Amino acid sequence: MTSTQASHASVKADAPADAFTHKLAAVADAVEAFLADRLAPETQAGEITRPPRLMEAMRYAVLGGGKRLRPFLAVEAARMLGGSEAGALAAGSAIELVHCYSLVHDDMPAMDNDDLRRGKPTVHKAYDEATAILVGDALQTLAFEILADAAWQPDAAIRADLVLGLAKASGLGGMVGGQLLDLGAEGRFGPVSLGVDDTLQLQAMKTGAILAFSVDAGAIVGGASADERAALLRYGLALGQAFQIADDILDREASPEAMGKATGKDKEAGKATLVDRLGLDGARAECDRLVGVCEEAVSRWGARAETLREAARFTVARKA
Amino acid sequence: MTSTQASHASVKADAPADAFTHKLAAVADAVEAFLADRLAPETQAGEITRPPRLMEAMRYAVLGGGKRLRPFLAVEAARMLGGSEAGALAAGSAIELVHCYSLVHDDMPAMDNDDLRRGKPTVHKAYDEATAILVGDALQTLAFEILADAAWQPDAAIRADLVLGLAKASGLGGMVGGQLLDLGAEGRFGPVSLGVDDTLQLQAMKTGAILAFSVDAGAIVGGASADERAALLRYGLALGQAFQIADDILDREASPEAMGKATGKDKEAGKATLVDRLGLDGARAECDRLVGVCEEAVSRWGARAETLREAARFTVARKA
Repeated sequence: MTSTQASHASVKADAPADAFTHKLAAVADAVEAFLADRLAPETQAGEITRPPRLMEAMRYAVLGGGKRLRPFLAVEAARMLGGSEAGALAAGSAIELVHCYSLVHDDMPAMDNDDLRRGKPTVHKAYDEATAILVGDALQTLAFEILADAAWQPDAAIRADLVLGLAKASGLGGMVGGQLLDLGAEGRFGPVSLGVDDTLQLQAMKTGAILAFSVDAGAIVGGASADERAALLRYGLALGQAFQIADDILDREASPEAMGKATGKDKEAGKATLVDRLGLDGARAECDRLVGVCEEAVSRWGARAETLREAARFTVARKA
Repeated sequence: MTSTQASHASVKADAPADAFTHKLAAVADAVEAFLADRLAPETQAGEITRPPRLMEAMRYAVLGGGKRLRPFLAVEAARMLGGSEAGALAAGSAIELVHCYSLVHDDMPAMDNDDLRRGKPTVHKAYDEATAILVGDALQTLAFEILADAAWQPDAAIRADLVLGLAKASGLGGMVGGQLLDLGAEGRFGPVSLGVDDTLQLQAMKTGAILAFSVDAGAIVGGASADERAALLRYGLALGQAFQIADDILDREASPEAMGKATGKDKEAGKATLVDRLGLDGARAECDRLVGVCEEAVSRWGARAETLREAARFTVARKA
């Protein structure tokens, strides 16, 4: 557990955390610029026109917020492997679009019915429900368009692999399936009692699959060997689990103001999380254990894996 | 105009029309089998589980209905070029999934608020709105998953081209953008008066782009040269326009029972269509002219293009 203790020490020390925050912010800025460019008024080849209302609502849903953790993971994994940072940035930005589209749809009245997201009105409040449905639809489409675009990735096999991976992580057997299980957990489709293991499964689908794919996308862009890809997948899966437990802890502890969205919803929905099984201290210890798994998974890369190690520590230490 | 007269003759004669109907039905059966297999309960590699409710609602939205015109165009274009029919069937089925997802979302209360589709309750009526949103989302994802799957298409460059083409045809500057313009045409986002040319533009985006891409997908799978692809694109664009005018005529003339959905909505919404500019007879003549454009575009393929010529005639002669 030495590595875990080391991780705690570095999260507590201000200097390394600040340096990490700067790295995260630099990728977030690059993602912002990339997506702002893709959502500019100019039509692209094959387009007739870009309806201003739709384009503006897409920009509202995507720009000006978020830690951009998913693109960061893709960029840093590719960077560690010596792969194309521009390619990883495009892939990571596509993943971020899928994340954003899922937030727009999940916030809708028929789903989680949230009025606030990142501290500002959700898309269906700022615009209307029809626009919000279409914004989510078009953001998903744009994600796949970016992944298939030769401008960012000359190797067609890599492009097709990225499309396949994002589709698997985000569809019926991944993110969307997890959101349906989450609605079911509220008793929406009939009485239900969700045990901790059921919750872990739905979380692995709803948020874990995309986080793990973010790392995998960096591995694909970076030309990882099968063995390296498996190691990075281990890292990604553990990171996804740690992220979710940290979320469960925040949901129990943080204020809606700090989170920029409603909290305490899991308890309200009667959904048992790992916090219920292990208590807050036990959940924190499990987070630490998972950070250790992440660190072990990337140990072969030595010092070059330091940013991914920091990302794992950041994931459990974040306050929102 | 000899070719147009010939097309009328063959549509009126029963035997060729029946032969064509059989070809259409054969592809529809193949699409049905392909999609039923992709939406079976068995999880695929990388999936944790397939939530039964979501999978069943996706099957409800997709299986057991529709002429499958889009896959038919993809399959027949590829067949004419001597390309892989299995590859074209997979690509066409993916396009059909995008078409189906758009119907599920467009039918929702916040959008067109339709209770009936193909004569049965729409997904949000048969299930609920949250499930309908997620069904649409996951159907779109599945479309891109199929296109990126090496099982149907060994050439990664073709896979990436198909993904890019479908994304461009169906997103912000295509189908989804067209649907937003269509909602705007109803005055949903403020007072508006839509001229015939505006309507033509929104129709070209909402339905034309995907129909044209269906033919293009067959061209991509069939390894068409740039010149052949351009000719097939001309065919696809003219077919899309003819399809839409035929729809406008049906909307004005047909009963809701025959169409399996509400009719007379364009007039109700105050949206001027080509029928308003040209009258019913003029609109029919324009359909015939466009069928002629289709026939000219594929003339280089001689007898091998006969099914695509029949498809153009069928598009304007259909009764639902």
